[in-house]
Amino acid sequence: MAPQINAPRGMRDFLPVEKAKREHLIDVAIKEYVARGFQQIETPILEDLDRLQSGQGGDNEKLVFKVQKRGEELTQALESGSELADLGLRFDLTVPLTRYFASNQGKLPRVLKAIQTGPVFRAERPQKGRYRQFVQCDIDIIGDDSMLAEFELLSASVSALKAMGGQDATIRVNHRELLTESIQALGVDSKDALSAMISIDKLDKIGVDGVCGELEEKFGGEVSQKASAWLSNLEGMSIPHLLQPLFDAFGKSLRYDPTLVRGMGYYTGTIFEIEHPGSSSSIGGGGRYDGMVGRWLGTDVPAVGISLGIERIVDLVEGNGQQAPGLVLLIDEGQSITRALEVQNSLLGNYRVRLERKPKNVKALLSELSEQGFSQFAFLNDSGDLDIKPIA
Amino acid sequence: MAPQINAPRGMRDFLPVEKAKREHLIDVAIKEYVARGFQQIETPILEDLDRLQSGQGGDNEKLVFKVQKRGEELTQALESGSELADLGLRFDLTVPLTRYFASNQGKLPRVLKAIQTGPVFRAERPQKGRYRQFVQCDIDIIGDDSMLAEFELLSASVSALKAMGGQDATIRVNHRELLTESIQALGVDSKDALSAMISIDKLDKIGVDGVCGELEEKFGGEVSQKASAWLSNLEGMSIPHLLQPLFDAFGKSLRYDPTLVRGMGYYTGTIFEIEHPGSSSSIGGGGRYDGMVGRWLGTDVPAVGISLGIERIVDLVEGNGQQAPGLVLLIDEGQSITRALEVQNSLLGNYRVRLERKPKNVKALLSELSEQGFSQFAFLNDSGDLDIKPIA
Repeated sequence: MAPQINAPRGMRDFLPVEKAKREHLIDVAIKEYVARGFQQIETPILEDLDRLQSGQGGDNEKLVFKVQKRGEELTQALESGSELADLGLRFDLTVPLTRYFASNQGKLPRVLKAIQTGPVFRAERPQKGRYRQFVQCDIDIIGDDSMLAEFELLSASVSALKAMGGQDATIRVNHRELLTESIQALGVDSKDALSAMISIDKLDKIGVDGVCGELEEKFGGEVSQKASAWLSNLEGMSIPHLLQPLFDAFGKSLRYDPTLVRGMGYYTGTIFEIEHPGSSSSIGGGGRYDGMVGRWLGTDVPAVGISLGIERIVDLVEGNGQQAPGLVLLIDEGQSITRALEVQNSLLGNYRVRLERKPKNVKALLSELSEQGFSQFAFLNDSGDLDIKPIA
Repeated sequence: MAPQINAPRGMRDFLPVEKAKREHLIDVAIKEYVARGFQQIETPILEDLDRLQSGQGGDNEKLVFKVQKRGEELTQALESGSELADLGLRFDLTVPLTRYFASNQGKLPRVLKAIQTGPVFRAERPQKGRYRQFVQCDIDIIGDDSMLAEFELLSASVSALKAMGGQDATIRVNHRELLTESIQALGVDSKDALSAMISIDKLDKIGVDGVCGELEEKFGGEVSQKASAWLSNLEGMSIPHLLQPLFDAFGKSLRYDPTLVRGMGYYTGTIFEIEHPGSSSSIGGGGRYDGMVGRWLGTDVPAVGISLGIERIVDLVEGNGQQAPGLVLLIDEGQSITRALEVQNSLLGNYRVRLERKPKNVKALLSELSEQGFSQFAFLNDSGDLDIKPIA
């Protein structure tokens, strides 16, 4: 009669205290972005399957949750053995954003400075710290090919991280063109640059020797030797001219990393990855992807974005995100509920007020609600001031 | 090369100005709820298909978007001809809430006062005003069988509606037990009460004659005659004893409607429907559903909730929801972006500040951004106060 029932595998219920913290952090980030002239937008959770699997999402395209056709269309698809699904759950907010810009260009400002937060879905094998539904919080500037866009994204991101309590974060910066030059200087053909990047991207995991081993297998000993010399002398490298203006403005928050790759194939310019001493993996990242919007429109549209990993930031920072202190107002049998509502209303500026009928065991109730973020209590009286006390 | 690309059929992209208004209204409602001791919770967008189709969702169960099994499980299902889907997109927030309470009861307060906002999905035939993805904003109290729960829901809902600009809303109130008594008084057998309710529920659409015609077909002329007398004398009916306390507290906002049914089969006590002179259909509703949580747990758990229809409220009320006035800061060629960021930061308390490179046609840019909610502009200077002007 009472079977074990849970949220679907790899997906999560959020308890009230967790949820309050998550919402608070997302609100804080959005406020910082809105203050800097970014505007919230929203796209549907579902997209046409063709768009999600059009080759822009890399390996994520394999992780799409597919939504089955309905009615007659499903019957026909089953009979003809054709594709059974017509929609899919979005795996990130970037592919939908480029589709959104193409769909709505005539109604949007010439330069769109977009804020998006919302759930994305990946049918990954569930494992610790990996979820099948998680929240992304992205800002993107579409339509500006100048460095102003990078300045604005970094200014907004540094402010948002600070406001969220992640002020110790560092943003690693590189540029895909510089990376390609470095790779060509090793003697790798430009058509093989992406293959070399895939090896270099593993530096954190397999070290200099591991990367050089892979490069030797792919491109021979000479490339490997040059790579070894390059990768062993990273510390002393000066900030390249191309990135210098960003370091002049955000020096303390940035670190130049000539080996930073970022996995996705669509990046064309600056790339970012956000790290924090409290987290072993990155807490955000992004970069310039000038070719992607153009795929839908047939004309080139420059674009650059930074995404914050809310799941990791939530684990990293303190605070429960509840602004006003919580007060439990206890109503005795026979007392007027209308009076209780009046008293509740009179306290709202200073407290969150939860009404409770006075139970036999007041202490047990207060102890339970103290875990839910309520720190004060008072017994309703029929007139006069309340005697508000802290929950011991 | 540039095909027509859009959001999936029946689903919507939100432009920046629309999105700001939506978010503002939802924020306003949540603030009112949190102030009264309700707590936000969250469940996944997806639920196991079995739970969504367990008979609690009425006709909505037929409108579930089904998510296909993956990998080996899909292959096996295709071979054996068994169900191809294992997950579904939620069609409301109530079925997931009852599942959530059953899954997490040990970690929740004895009485859960929950706030939920989020998208729900129904595979309806797309038509004007009906969407396949839309937002619900629910409050529910689980675990309190006393009228205090109804008082709290009404207090929070009336406050939220007022804060959103919907202060002219009226909440129609009835009670399923009173409705059942009225139906029995017509001479309808108690086992046929639900069938009679289905006819009475059409009163707004088909009028007294239409309802009585249906009742005559179902139950004969005597029932129909009694129903006609009942339905023609609704105006003078006094508020029943059972509901009087609610009218004492919220009199002006409530209206007793002895014929209010609410479609879902799971309601057991008070029922609510929110109407507004600016909307031809209801803008929210709810009621007591004491049997539903118990289905998962095997023990009875009382529950009552009210849901606001955000889509309709957005259309009903004024306001763009943007707190700080928007200012466009124009940067001339050769001016320092770092200086622009400093000036932006100094203005943030009073303005949302959007940076723009000064284009050849300043007027066209300002006119475009004025439609996006920016009302002021200034040219960046190298020192001293800015000359801030309204966009003409």
